Order: sequence, then C-alpha cells, then structure tokens
Amino acid sequence: MTKRTEYSLYNELMSGYQEQLDKDGVRGERIAKRLDALSKIGLTSDLGSNRPGFSQEEKQAKALVMSWMEEAGLDVEMDGAGNVIGRLAGENNELKSIASGSHVDSVPNGGHFDGPLGVISALEVVEAWKETNYIPNKPFDILIFSDEEGSRFNNGLNGSEAFVGQANVDSKLDLTDAAGDSFSTVLEAVDLTVEGYANAAKKINEIETFVEVHIEQGKRLEKEDLPCGIVSGIAGPCWLEVTFHGRAGHAGNTPMNDRSDALVTASTFITRVPDFPAKVSDSAVATVGKMHVQPNGVNVIPGEVSVFVDIRDIYADTVHQLVDDVKQLAHTIAKERNQSCTINEQVRITPVPIKKEYQQKLASALESKKIRPYTLPSGAGHDAMIIGSRIPVSMLFVRSKDGVSHHPAEWTDLADCVQGIRVLKTYIEQLQ
Amino acid sequence: MTKRTEYSLYNELMSGYQEQLDKDGVRGERIAKRLDALSKIGLTSDLGSNRPGFSQEEKQAKALVMSWMEEAGLDVEMDGAGNVIGRLAGENNELKSIASGSHVDSVPNGGHFDGPLGVISALEVVEAWKETNYIPNKPFDILIFSDEEGSRFNNGLNGSEAFVGQANVDSKLDLTDAAGDSFSTVLEAVDLTVEGYANAAKKINEIETFVEVHIEQGKRLEKEDLPCGIVSGIAGPCWLEVTFHGRAGHAGNTPMNDRSDALVTASTFITRVPDFPAKVSDSAVATVGKMHVQPNGVNVIPGEVSVFVDIRDIYADTVHQLVDDVKQLAHTIAKERNQSCTINEQVRITPVPIKKEYQQKLASALESKKIRPYTLPSGAGHDAMIIGSRIPVSMLFVRSKDGVSHHPAEWTDLADCVQGIRVLKTYIEQLQ
Repeated sequence: MTKRTEYSLYNELMSGYQEQLDKDGVRGERIAKRLDALSKIGLTSDLGSNRPGFSQEEKQAKALVMSWMEEAGLDVEMDGAGNVIGRLAGENNELKSIASGSHVDSVPNGGHFDGPLGVISALEVVEAWKETNYIPNKPFDILIFSDEEGSRFNNGLNGSEAFVGQANVDSKLDLTDAAGDSFSTVLEAVDLTVEGYANAAKKINEIETFVEVHIEQGKRLEKEDLPCGIVSGIAGPCWLEVTFHGRAGHAGNTPMNDRSDALVTASTFITRVPDFPAKVSDSAVATVGKMHVQPNGVNVIPGEVSVFVDIRDIYADTVHQLVDDVKQLAHTIAKERNQSCTINEQVRITPVPIKKEYQQKLASALESKKIRPYTLPSGAGHDAMIIGSRIPVSMLFVRSKDGVSHHPAEWTDLADCVQGIRVLKTYIEQLQ
Repeated sequence: MTKRTEYSLYNELMSGYQEQLDKDGVRGERIAKRLDALSKIGLTSDLGSNRPGFSQEEKQAKALVMSWMEEAGLDVEMDGAGNVIGRLAGENNELKSIASGSHVDSVPNGGHFDGPLGVISALEVVEAWKETNYIPNKPFDILIFSDEEGSRFNNGLNGSEAFVGQANVDSKLDLTDAAGDSFSTVLEAVDLTVEGYANAAKKINEIETFVEVHIEQGKRLEKEDLPCGIVSGIAGPCWLEVTFHGRAGHAGNTPMNDRSDALVTASTFITRVPDFPAKVSDSAVATVGKMHVQPNGVNVIPGEVSVFVDIRDIYADTVHQLVDDVKQLAHTIAKERNQSCTINEQVRITPVPIKKEYQQKLASALESKKIRPYTLPSGAGHDAMIIGSRIPVSMLFVRSKDGVSHHPAEWTDLADCVQGIRVLKTYIEQLQ
C-alpha cells in the first residue's frame, strides 16, 4: 500500500497521459500539478481528501488557488462567506461576466476531483487564453464557493447560498459541528464573521451566467464511453420522513395473527417505492436510504418505524407528482394493514432546469471536439443549483471511474479532464 | 399524574378486591403488601420498577424476601451466584424437594409483577400452609434467581444458569455494563465473586421438580377470560443475523435500473417471513425486530443491511424446520435480486417441553378451583427454561392486562394472583 508521504496524484494522473491531447493552450501537465498540489492539503492515510468546509485545510486550499489566480493576472477578492472571486478583465468590462468554478472543500476522507476539478478547469481556461493571447469580450469570473459539501455542519452549499443572498443566517446560528463549535466560532477560526457571511451577496448581479464543470459521480458517461456530457437539469431533492405506527409486543408471546408489526408495513412500502419513479419520468429516482426501527430490539415486535425517502427529478412537475404518489402509497399500505402513518416533508428543493440554449451551445462545443453530445441529469445538488435560483446556469459532467465519489477511490482520467476543459473553453468563448 | 412519593401499589391492588377470594389460608392483602413493599425498591418516576440484575436494588429486594422467608420459618441461604434458596422442611427430608420461585430483578423501568409474582406466590403457599397447619411430605424450596432479565449485561438468566451449573463463565468475563464495569466488578459490588458464581451449582440435584408462576406477558388468557393457564412448553429462541449484500450508491446519481439496493432485498424478506410460522405449527412465531442499514444515510442507496430474526416454538423439530425455511427464504430472495446473503446463527436455545403428567396435574388443580384448564405456549424464556434443562419443570401463567410487560403499565389483578396461587398450592400438594 502506498504511504501517505510517498503518494503522488501527479504521477497517477500523468501515467499513460498522451500529450497530444494538449491543444489550444490547455495543458494536462499543469492540470495534474495543480490537482496534485491541492491533494496534499488534508491528504488522509487512505490517500483521500479531508478538507471540511470552513476548516484550515479549506482555507489553505483557497489561498493556493488564489496565488495561482494572481499569477495569472486576475483581480482576486474574497467575500464575507469566504467565497473567492477571481476576475479576468475582458474587452468590455461594463458587460456582465461569464463565471465558472466550483468548490475546494471535501467530505471526510473524500476524493481529489469533486470540487477541485471545476475550479482548476476554470483557471486552465484563463491559462490557455494567456498562452493563445485570447482576450474575452466579457469579464470572466472564477468562483470558489465555501463549504459546498456541508460535512462540517451536515448542512451544505453554505458558500453559494450566501453568494446569492439566500442563506438563512438565523438557522445557521443554531448549527454546531462534531467538536461542539458553533457556526460563528467556526467562521471566526478562519477569519470570517457571521455579519460578513450574512452580507456576502454582492457579485451575483454582475454575472450573466455560471457554468460548472464537475465529475459525474455516476456511471452513465462510462457506459456511453464518453469523456464528458451535458447536464440537462439539476434535481432538487425532496426528503420525506414517513412513520408507520403499529403496536409493539413481545416477539415470543404475541401470536402471529395478533400482531400489528410496523416493520412489516414499512418493508412493504420500501419494496414498492422503486416502481413509481418510472411512472413520472426517465430521470426520476426515489430511494429509502435511512430508517429508524423502534425499539429495534431483536425480541420486540417493532411498534414504530420511520423511513426516509429521497425523491428527485430535474423537473418540478414530475417531482411533485412522484412525491404525491409516494405519499399516497404510504397511506394506502398503512390502511391495508390497519395502521396509521404520518408524513413529514423535511426538505423540498426546486429542481434547476438548464436552458435549451445553453445545452445547445455545450453540444456544439462538444461536436467541435468530435465528442458525441450526450445529455444526462444531475441527481446530486451542486453550487450551480443554488446559483441557478438567480441566474441561468449550465453544467458539464466529466466521466467518473465506476461512478465512485466521496471516497479516496474517486477517479477521473487526466485525458477526460483535458477534454472537458477544452469543451468548457470553447463554450465560454461562444458566450462572448 | 401520581407522584412517586404518593404511589401505592397496595392501594391499586386492593381497590375492588373481594376478600371472599381469600381461601385455604391464601390472603390477598398479604400478597398486595408484599408486592407493594418490593415495588418501592427501585421505583421510577414513571411508577415503574428499576432493579437491574446484580444491582443494590436487586440485592435489597432479595434481602427483604429473605427476611419474610425467615419469619415464615424457612432455612435461608444464598449461593455463589446470589440465588436465594429458602427451604421449608417436610415430613421426609431425605426426599428430593418440590421447588417454586422466580426472580426479583427487572428491566429498566419495567413492571411490578414480572418476577416478583412468582416469588411471592411460592412464599404465599408456605404462609397458607402455616395458617392451615399443613406440613408437606417433601421439603419445599423457594428460589429467587439472580439477574433473569439480563438488563445489566444484555445477557439474561445468569442466576439460573449458574444454579444448574451451565454458566459459561469465561464468556461472562468479557461482559461490561453501560457504565463500563466488568462482570467481576459488578458481582463484587454486591458482595459476590466470579469464583463463587462459577461454583454456585449445588442444589439442583436435591430438587425433584420446579414450578414457576409468572405473568403471561401476552393476551391469550385475557381473550379466553381466564385468570390463569397451563404452560404447554417454553419456546427456546433462535436468533439469526441475516445480512444482504448489495451495492451502495448515490441516491441522486444512480438510475433506478442500475441499482442493487440491499434494503429493498431485506424488505422483501421481512414482508415474507410472517408467512412461514403457520406452516410448521400453531405456536411458532418469527419476528424481525431489529435491523442495521449501512450506511443509513438519507441520500445513499443502502449497500448492506442486516436483519435479526427471532424464531421460536415449543417443539425442537418445528423450530428446526422454521429456521431452515427462513434461511432458505433469505437465500432465495437474495438470489432473485442478484445479491448475496450471509447468515449468522447467534443463539439457539432448545425449547423445554412440559411433561403431560405435570400439565395434567395443573389441569386437575385448576378444575378443583372451577377454572377451565387452558394450555398456552410460553414464547418468552424464563428461569424455568434453564432449570428445565436438568429437571422436569412446569409453569402456570397468570393473566396480564392488555399483554403489556416490561413497562410501568404492566398489570395483573390481585384476584387473578390469588386464584393462581391457590392453583399453585393445590398443585404442589398433589406432588407430595
């Protein structure tokens, strides 16, 4: 097993990379060096990444990228939420900017591509423009959002929410991290303040559109044998907590015909949920990932069972329909078994559609690189989902190996990164 | 709500009790006073009982009963496991004894009848004999077994196992309670030792048969409108840990048709388990009461799910058949869904049949009190199950209100207690 001190993401990325893929100023080696430099900040013994939001590691990662931004001639600033904005001046700086970027925080023991690839991609476009003496018409902003993953407070997208002025600051004040530190204590440890966080939103009105490059974290592109693809929409999750109320009893003393077992009811529900997404759309999904069995004793008939259903689609109307169907299913099954059920809708985030116009421009950029345009939904939330609540956004997914993410084994070949960045560069040039 | 300091189990028991039920020296008021006195040791704010095994409260409860035994003229001793033996001499003390009793420990916040009723019943038989100047032919032993519930170490029947010389002392040494105290530390705190515990078994060879009076902890007698009934056998539980192995994935990014969801498989299994007990016998039961979902995240498709199946019957062959059926079901369902499953048999206790001869004597004792003889299985384990591995045993169940047990609301009317004790007395007299 490779030791932490001997690990080189650079070597792994460059192994087998063919330099003829370098074109139009986009250079694989520079990308590999930068991903490698970021990987060393918070590198875990499993060779994964540990840079929680608002940690010293995230701060250090931002500082490193800011130094590269400055070397590349950008005007760099940080807002009150710790979001980094690196601006490249264009020919017409009174115009709204095109923006691109992502985040540099990670889940605990996560991978080296989720977030960093989007930031390095945006920066590589600037490097390529410098090498080819291209000056964009509109200003170009590279954005790094704070704490996308939410691993610190189990509450993500904190940077982008502040960026668009939609952070519910009061609710954040109640958050505490695993060490028991409050939101304000955590912010202060990285030289931020709650006041600054609450008043971060300034730049969003100066941006025309935001495009985020991100690893797919799924297997669709791998199955299609494509290096990258066009995101058709970003699914907003709806989380339902469905609780079935039966009657607890002794597993030995209660005859089978005198039971009201809440776990049998919940299980009936769980087996039928997977039938419903296809009824509303091809991209819809519904998952029971978490449950609580009460009292969860091996010799006690469960009296109450809560299951948590995660429902997603990229269209608001199909999510709405699927949520209704799942709720109806729960009530029907409970009734069939003479039990009651209560449903608590914990979260409902509106899906962010991606305009056809932007999808078409991405398709034309892909075709210019001889890559077959393929669209796929984003099931996961991203900073672009939050930014998309204010301005049009688009996303380009880059192929993930085996769909693995949030794990040290997360991987994307450098060749795919380079091809994705070349598509991004062409796309941004089309937007001038 | 009644305050703890104002609570009187005595008043509750005596309310509505008709003294004409007192017959043959069995007195409801004495029984109520003694159950009340025990209820005050470890009384919780919910008016329940908290006397974990090997606690100061259990020790105090034993000491109180020992004082009553001494007042009643018994020879009282305690063995190395803290089991109490109170012997009433008979006419022929070279004969093996008849024994009866139960336990005085409780689950946390349990009730006031589970255990104490069996001990007080045996003692009331002696009191009644004293009042009626009856001297049994054989010696009579009243037994109080330590730590029947196992709430201290999640491992019950510790007293009766030591009593029959079947305690696996090495495995007990690894136990720790919630406070982190080891088995030996806990024993020492109540003036016992591991050496004494290991060598407790002395008296079992001096006993002909053991009869335990216990609350039913079920609803059968209530449904039959009977104060008490004959236990036909004591089910030995078999506990299976069945683990289904699927593939974890992101709930948003994994299409429905590319999933291997271990929770859907486990749920299919759970919904089908209840069909199987009736195939082997009327008394068999099977329950999934506990499960672990991995990783149990609302937005993660479960990759591995373990369910714990509790299987019981009073016949060894039907338990065996049902365990085989349930194992086969797990493998079949896993295979149908292209997953694997692993099965770990954690516990298998041989059921204890109750000899027809003893059941018939109990029936005749019931008939003498004009109570219709009704037999029912014991789904729960009891001290009698352990004692039954060495000598013949029998059990008499007394009606439980609403089947509730292990809860402050556990209740049995004093009239039912008195009728049960009168049956016990006649039954023991038949065994002379």
